[in-house]
Amino acid sequence: MTGHDADRRKAAIIGGGVIGGGWAARFVLHGWDVAVFDPHPDTARRIGAVLDNARRSLPALADFAMPAEGNVLFTPNLAEAVADAEWVQESVPEDLALKHAVLAEVQELARPDAVIASSTSGYKPSELQQGASNPSQILVAHPFNPVYLLPLVELVAGPAGESGTTERAGNVLTSIGMAPLLVRNEIDAHLADRLMEAVWREGLWLVKDDIATTEEIDNSIRYGFGLRWAQMGLFETFRLAGGEDGMAHFIRQFGPALQWPWSRLTDVPELTETLVQKIAAQSDAQSGAHSIQELEQIRDRNLVGMLRILKERDWGAGAILNAHDRLLRTQVSLVDDTSAPLRLLELSVLPAWIDYNGHMTEYRYVQVFSDSCEALLRRIGMHDEYVAAGNSWYTAETHSQFFDEVGVNEPMYTTAQILAADAKRLHVFYRLHAGVDDRLLATLEAMYLHVNMATGKVAAAGDEAMRTLGALAAAHTGLEKPQSAGRFVGQR
Amino acid sequence: MTGHDADRRKAAIIGGGVIGGGWAARFVLHGWDVAVFDPHPDTARRIGAVLDNARRSLPALADFAMPAEGNVLFTPNLAEAVADAEWVQESVPEDLALKHAVLAEVQELARPDAVIASSTSGYKPSELQQGASNPSQILVAHPFNPVYLLPLVELVAGPAGESGTTERAGNVLTSIGMAPLLVRNEIDAHLADRLMEAVWREGLWLVKDDIATTEEIDNSIRYGFGLRWAQMGLFETFRLAGGEDGMAHFIRQFGPALQWPWSRLTDVPELTETLVQKIAAQSDAQSGAHSIQELEQIRDRNLVGMLRILKERDWGAGAILNAHDRLLRTQVSLVDDTSAPLRLLELSVLPAWIDYNGHMTEYRYVQVFSDSCEALLRRIGMHDEYVAAGNSWYTAETHSQFFDEVGVNEPMYTTAQILAADAKRLHVFYRLHAGVDDRLLATLEAMYLHVNMATGKVAAAGDEAMRTLGALAAAHTGLEKPQSAGRFVGQR
Repeated sequence: MTGHDADRRKAAIIGGGVIGGGWAARFVLHGWDVAVFDPHPDTARRIGAVLDNARRSLPALADFAMPAEGNVLFTPNLAEAVADAEWVQESVPEDLALKHAVLAEVQELARPDAVIASSTSGYKPSELQQGASNPSQILVAHPFNPVYLLPLVELVAGPAGESGTTERAGNVLTSIGMAPLLVRNEIDAHLADRLMEAVWREGLWLVKDDIATTEEIDNSIRYGFGLRWAQMGLFETFRLAGGEDGMAHFIRQFGPALQWPWSRLTDVPELTETLVQKIAAQSDAQSGAHSIQELEQIRDRNLVGMLRILKERDWGAGAILNAHDRLLRTQVSLVDDTSAPLRLLELSVLPAWIDYNGHMTEYRYVQVFSDSCEALLRRIGMHDEYVAAGNSWYTAETHSQFFDEVGVNEPMYTTAQILAADAKRLHVFYRLHAGVDDRLLATLEAMYLHVNMATGKVAAAGDEAMRTLGALAAAHTGLEKPQSAGRFVGQR
Repeated sequence: MTGHDADRRKAAIIGGGVIGGGWAARFVLHGWDVAVFDPHPDTARRIGAVLDNARRSLPALADFAMPAEGNVLFTPNLAEAVADAEWVQESVPEDLALKHAVLAEVQELARPDAVIASSTSGYKPSELQQGASNPSQILVAHPFNPVYLLPLVELVAGPAGESGTTERAGNVLTSIGMAPLLVRNEIDAHLADRLMEAVWREGLWLVKDDIATTEEIDNSIRYGFGLRWAQMGLFETFRLAGGEDGMAHFIRQFGPALQWPWSRLTDVPELTETLVQKIAAQSDAQSGAHSIQELEQIRDRNLVGMLRILKERDWGAGAILNAHDRLLRTQVSLVDDTSAPLRLLELSVLPAWIDYNGHMTEYRYVQVFSDSCEALLRRIGMHDEYVAAGNSWYTAETHSQFFDEVGVNEPMYTTAQILAADAKRLHVFYRLHAGVDDRLLATLEAMYLHVNMATGKVAAAGDEAMRTLGALAAAHTGLEKPQSAGRFVGQR
């Protein structure tokens, strides 16, 4: 009994550490059955933790339903692990003798047509294949942690590789959402780890020589070039550093620095005209479809999006932006003029809120009103601590009208008028105005119910909590009722 | 006449290339007046292009209004450029003699209390300060392209530095949204460029030796570790690579690779126990506030967010995800059963749609209905080419009711019932149901107006375009009218 359903594909995971666990999660969440072989007594718990992380995150990348999860079997029996497996992924420690022993046993027990892939960071396929009964069955599929999220996998077949096997392996990796990068010429540590190893060596020097701490080095990456590399890599980024003059200009400008002591690592290729031309031609083939100006704008859109995500998470460069917002924030003074609707938010239309027509997208209006509700609840002392204590106003129903368009960067403000309030129901009419000419852009009428979040049921707010809201509602009884309050859709 | 308003702060930008332009944009958009000195005849156009890029992107990072833009003055007169300037930023080419000449002239003409900062990538402050009349006035403020978006700026005062000047410089940089990283020990190329230089050298070897192309190298970065470095950097990322055993485990595991040929760059520090302990202690100080498990989840949330942004832009790793979506996509078959509302979308609640209560956020409901509207318009042939030809249905008003909560990953579907349709008005009632038990989660009643997008005015749709919609509307006349259609907010 292998726990394997014949209708599903099966992968065997040999070695259940961080990398093996990541592989298991990626296969299982893409509907494969997985058998994990690792003698470590804690394997099931460790892999379970990785799977939990993967379940929380990987499905968030897809906009279509993923297949039903496959089964996970933990077994101390290698034969059982690899039986029927179409894919065997070896992720044991970086010890060539150990890998040889494991691969030999796997090759004896596995299906003859199974792909046997190694997660090795450093060994070349030709090294792994030494003494193998069928060398071409073994290849390198080197992933990156977290394996369940990062698409990159370096696929290296080595000199013994057969194109059919490599293609089949690439198809499997693509089917589980990865981006197989075929490394055509095997080399120690493949591609990405060579680049990382260079940085690692340089970084170690900086720490050893007391130039900087690990934290300073990390900040020098994640507040700057790390953000660039997440979306363009090294060469395309440098193509832009040349500005309108492009890659050739950049190499001419910074080429001499290769001879300067800009790194403790000093084995540098000579920048011959042949090499310059080769790089420029490859860069043209890679990025030439876009002008430098287009690439700049693509880069900026990517950076803005990623920075805003980090900002929502208050992390890395996003934490810097939040600190800057606190500087920009001018205290919104709430005028307690009860002869007019309460002024709530001052904001402008963000570039990310614009649709292809150049106008603010429909659901962003709703988001602005939703933010206005939060501001209102803060104003009446029913947010933050109040919510943390288990009370909240839930939206029961809303009515929106859209009157006018608004373009990027236009200033806007919102107001709220309390139509009615008691301890269980709050009826509010919001208006969104353009800042320049006060024209009405949209309205939202909302009914909120006061809910005890523990029970999920409507429950009355306490007298103390109602004091400010009651006073505001009383003051607003003197305001003219909005024409469209109580309006239904399509009313003439 | 300097174009400078005495109420505003002023910066002088010496050298108007990509970096100088980026500095100008960052200062101007933060309300500073800027004077640009560059003899290049094309300077105003070049800087204007950078400013346009900055205006499109930098304000999108802020959630509070930015100050009104300052003025930009272009001048061939260095004295005029630096007059009254509180900050002088030198960004001329990397030629020490040239920098010496420029800095000497600036120092003669500028306010004695002005900060004179150099954008130099490579020179140390002590080199720039050689022969200066007031060495401590000159420091390095090394930014990263695009200067108007990336927060990192390396601030290096050198041995002649005075803490007062450095602190003042740091405050200015913070006030324009940057993250000054104080480099305590001056070194060639500061910190980040040393790390980049190491990768650059390694990358050049890979291209020269025909191991990989520039595009393959870039993909090996941006599909993998580039995404990690955008949010955690090098050391914190490696801390996680050790899994639950953390940093010490990682160094023990991968330390030996320093002696292996994993890079052409071979000047490596000896991994003594002292160095291991130093790194582990610095890493604890940097990241020890979070457990490895917490850091893993923080990392995953960051990666999911950034990957989804790249997905929306169909770029880099995001393009890989979109390709994978096309594999996952199962063709939605539209049942033409006109005895029931038209079934439109099959979807599930994405993790990113969940609020802090574990339920789908209000505006995501609206987004689902908005997507349903698109699906409906596609179904009746009034989307895509129809919109491209200048016709569209605009939302005039909506009414929503929220009936039930829904948790992460729960399947859902939407339906649409046409209440009325003519060539100018389309009245639709949408329902959102849970997939498991068909329970009603929310409804949205919407009135759309048919608009000619060129004029922005309501205009009748043509007979041809109305054929399918008319047929559907006719078929739906037999359906029972939804109870809450025509309902107004607060109706009992």
